Amino acid sequence: MKIGIIGLGLIGGSFALSLKNDFDATIFGMDKYNLKKAKQLMLIDYELNKNLIHTMDVVIIATPVNTIGEIAIDVLDKINPTALVFDTGSTKYQIAKTIENHPKRSNYLLTHPIAGTEYSGPSAAFEGLFNKKINIICDLKKTKSDLVNKAKKIFLKLKMQIIEMESKEHDRHIAYVSHLSHISSFMLGKTVMDLEKNEKNIFDMAGSGFASTVRLAKSSPSTWTPIFIENKTNILQSLDEYINNLIEFRNKIIKKDKQAIFDELTQTNYIRNIIDKIEKE
Amino acid sequence: MKIGIIGLGLIGGSFALSLKNDFDATIFGMDKYNLKKAKQLMLIDYELNKNLIHTMDVVIIATPVNTIGEIAIDVLDKINPTALVFDTGSTKYQIAKTIENHPKRSNYLLTHPIAGTEYSGPSAAFEGLFNKKINIICDLKKTKSDLVNKAKKIFLKLKMQIIEMESKEHDRHIAYVSHLSHISSFMLGKTVMDLEKNEKNIFDMAGSGFASTVRLAKSSPSTWTPIFIENKTNILQSLDEYINNLIEFRNKIIKKDKQAIFDELTQTNYIRNIIDKIEKE
Repeated sequence: MKIGIIGLGLIGGSFALSLKNDFDATIFGMDKYNLKKAKQLMLIDYELNKNLIHTMDVVIIATPVNTIGEIAIDVLDKINPTALVFDTGSTKYQIAKTIENHPKRSNYLLTHPIAGTEYSGPSAAFEGLFNKKINIICDLKKTKSDLVNKAKKIFLKLKMQIIEMESKEHDRHIAYVSHLSHISSFMLGKTVMDLEKNEKNIFDMAGSGFASTVRLAKSSPSTWTPIFIENKTNILQSLDEYINNLIEFRNKIIKKDKQAIFDELTQTNYIRNIIDKIEKE
Repeated sequence: MKIGIIGLGLIGGSFALSLKNDFDATIFGMDKYNLKKAKQLMLIDYELNKNLIHTMDVVIIATPVNTIGEIAIDVLDKINPTALVFDTGSTKYQIAKTIENHPKRSNYLLTHPIAGTEYSGPSAAFEGLFNKKINIICDLKKTKSDLVNKAKKIFLKLKMQIIEMESKEHDRHIAYVSHLSHISSFMLGKTVMDLEKNEKNIFDMAGSGFASTVRLAKSSPSTWTPIFIENKTNILQSLDEYINNLIEFRNKIIKKDKQAIFDELTQTNYIRNIIDKIEKE
């Protein structure tokens, strides 16, 4: 099987490594910035150029979300009619809109493997990244059923767990459970560094709790800037609710309302059940 | 050496386990709520009652911060003149004020081992909790130098790294590097649960990044409610800056100001150096 991968960062690179071994596939890679590094790391067998796209059995688009729509159109224009194309972006609705009227729309599957880490680039890629991770596949009625099955086979072989969802719903929920955490983490990092920038040793006071909470502030600006813009509406809604909750909590502290604070923390402790479930997976 | 520990939760219980083995100490424990459990878990050798306090060589106060001041006065009233008393609370300035005029003030050392986890209670205690952790000791000129040395010996034997600081400074910095992370995490957990409460499966979409960011929302309300009230002034300052940063970031998203978002994320990525340092420790 010939697999073309466009974008050889953490996600694309990890697909390359995982598919190469699990499928005995030949990997063709394309990347504007990282091609040399991807070759050095032996992520790919050959370079993918536009003239080869029609020879691929599968094309994976794993570039920043703002670039996926345009690349998707270009790939669909070129592929042969039995090929499967899927992307791995963290937002889905805009991409769905961009491709909706393409004559080969049914060759395309919208996917989102929930498998990011705070690291990025080809050197962050590893085989096994997708092991036991969730893959959300969207609007799958718009994809030919044999190609949906082909994609599912790939994801299951990589030991992913598949969830199906409408792209619009995906973007709304993912704003809360992923995009908002990234913003809260980035802004926490910023707030602490703003204050403490001339007092480096103060960070000696920070414990593992701080490290855990700001971990996502290490994430790649190239990946996340377009996500925040692409999913603007949902992110603003979640962010506004977050800011309101912070302001309400602030007011409870101002009033020294011990009972209200205690009750709020106790209710929120319910998150344990959710986190434990995530971490068990 | 006879060591009395008041408060047998994560911190007090872990001191019990660590000191018992490292110092061949006899551990006397007192706890309003957890005594039975602490005995079952064999954290302590004997129950500590008020009539025994004058026989202790060391008394450790590891109760919620709002109770430490009163207990400290009571313990200082009762101890023999060569005994060392220290507390382990996450705020220091109010406690310092409460004990400042006590005739045995110089028997007391204000400490803050940065060794919490999101777990609490006697069953969360373990030997080795303090291994390679920071212990901040405050206002140490107010403690007899031989007792400071005695305390340092204990902390070093438990492999803690000691930092010295004024209690007022401690509270200001710790608001940023610890207390604020707890609030951001609790409110993130709340925000997501508020929206998603009827849609349990949605949490399947959450990845390890979300789990990491809300980890601290599992923390104990009994521990954290008093901390938020005790360190109110510093927490409000840090929280206001955090909220302002979130609002500014929100405005950048509204304007779709790609460059400004990218620059902000890139600057904040500097936090990598800090986190890596924390995690190496």
